[in-house]
Amino acid sequence: VRTAMGFDVHRLVAGEELWLGGILIPHDKGLSGHSDADVALHAVTDALLGAAGAGDIGTHFPPSDAQWRGAPSSRFLEHARDLVLAACGRIDFIDLTIICEAPKVGPYRDAMRARIAGLLRLPESRISIKATTTERLGFTGRKEGIAAQAIATISIAEFTR
Amino acid sequence: VRTAMGFDVHRLVAGEELWLGGILIPHDKGLSGHSDADVALHAVTDALLGAAGAGDIGTHFPPSDAQWRGAPSSRFLEHARDLVLAACGRIDFIDLTIICEAPKVGPYRDAMRARIAGLLRLPESRISIKATTTERLGFTGRKEGIAAQAIATISIAEFTR
Amino acid sequence: VRTAMGFDVHRLVAGEELWLGGILIPHDKGLSGHSDADVALHAVTDALLGAAGAGDIGTHFPPSDAQWRGAPSSRFLEHARDLVLAACGRIDFIDLTIICEAPKVGPYRDAMRARIAGLLRLPESRISIKATTTERLGFTGRKEGIAAQAIATISIAEFTR
Ligand SMILES: [Mg+2]
Ligand SMILES: [Mg+2]
Ligand SMILES: [Mg+2]
Repeated sequence: VRTAMGFDVHRLVAGEELWLGGILIPHDKGLSGHSDADVALHAVTDALLGAAGAGDIGTHFPPSDAQWRGAPSSRFLEHARDLVLAACGRIDFIDLTIICEAPKVGPYRDAMRARIAGLLRLPESRISIKATTTERLGFTGRKEGIAAQAIATISIAEFTR
Repeated sequence: VRTAMGFDVHRLVAGEELWLGGILIPHDKGLSGHSDADVALHAVTDALLGAAGAGDIGTHFPPSDAQWRGAPSSRFLEHARDLVLAACGRIDFIDLTIICEAPKVGPYRDAMRARIAGLLRLPESRISIKATTTERLGFTGRKEGIAAQAIATISIAEFTR
Repeated sequence: VRTAMGFDVHRLVAGEELWLGGILIPHDKGLSGHSDADVALHAVTDALLGAAGAGDIGTHFPPSDAQWRGAPSSRFLEHARDLVLAACGRIDFIDLTIICEAPKVGPYRDAMRARIAGLLRLPESRISIKATTTERLGFTGRKEGIAAQAIATISIAEFTR
């Protein structure tokens, strides 16, 4: 068993779509970045890449590479899933924490869980989605950006380590 | 085995009691929030809820619900413990990190450890309590608030997954 | 199996060497602190101390103790490794996330991985090193400091718990 985490931050700006946890959320601002900037999927992707010992999202999808411009982050997550499987790993559990003042995550929790479970081909019971604010403190508290942290627990066959 | 994390932040304000890790600490400021605002117990609660795949503390104890006003956070932690047990889970380990400039956590570490172990009905050896500062940087560095992160490792019977 | 995390922050200042992940990196600023201020090794050290239930880096190496002035953080990491081994624990995996705007971590990833693997006497495949920015937000985004988070997964013989 091995556990790894992913952490990511993107800026909230006007005039962008808000993709979060694989879901398009109606909101007055969206996240900016080279891809669709889905900070939650990026955190899960990095957690899986970490557990596979396969670098990070920037290693695999450099922002300098024009082909990832506006790319759906689901592609990054699927790539990380395949790397874990190729290493004879099994994804046991994914725990995601979204840190923002707004939007409220609760109404979209079930949809995010279903979407991430589908992308990872796991039962929804193995996906946890939580949200918290920073009580108006710091950059998330000032609504300048959204942060996300994810923990991946994977099992990997002993002989492949 | 599955691992999940909890992250929480509360504001430090004058005129509030400081509850931290289940302990009342003498300090010139306290944490503000709807309940007793014990940011450390909230982080552990969210880690357990995450590991159980049972949403987050806001799902179970919404701040909009008047009955949790001033509530001791030990009740939230006990509820999360019971949810893990009801899912045939066993709490293997709890690791808590308190992030603040002040107060010093060291003098209260043993008391927090005993308190959390008691609430979770675990031996103290399965509870880790750490503290760190952010070197006067950011909102924790400016003493505007305290952040806490917790990691819960639980085992859950395969047939219940 | 148990999992714990370490989190640490140090300030970036002019006129200091930049030690990061056990490597000396050429950069216009370095990290300030009592020891060599290697925020990445401190995070890994705290993750191991947490998994061993052995307090935190400040417990073992108090900044008030003059003997640790300018000390190489590799000594702290070796001490934490030995505490895990003394508790009949085995280090299964280390996942490290470095959070900064600069320097770029990618070019030094392999050297950090080899260094940490050597200090912990583990194969490199059991060490993950990731980096991310906070998109110019917050104190890491303003390049005022570097933050690091590490997750340690250890196995510990049941009878010693
Ligand atoms: Mg990103
Ligand atoms: Mg709270
Ligand atoms: Mg330090």
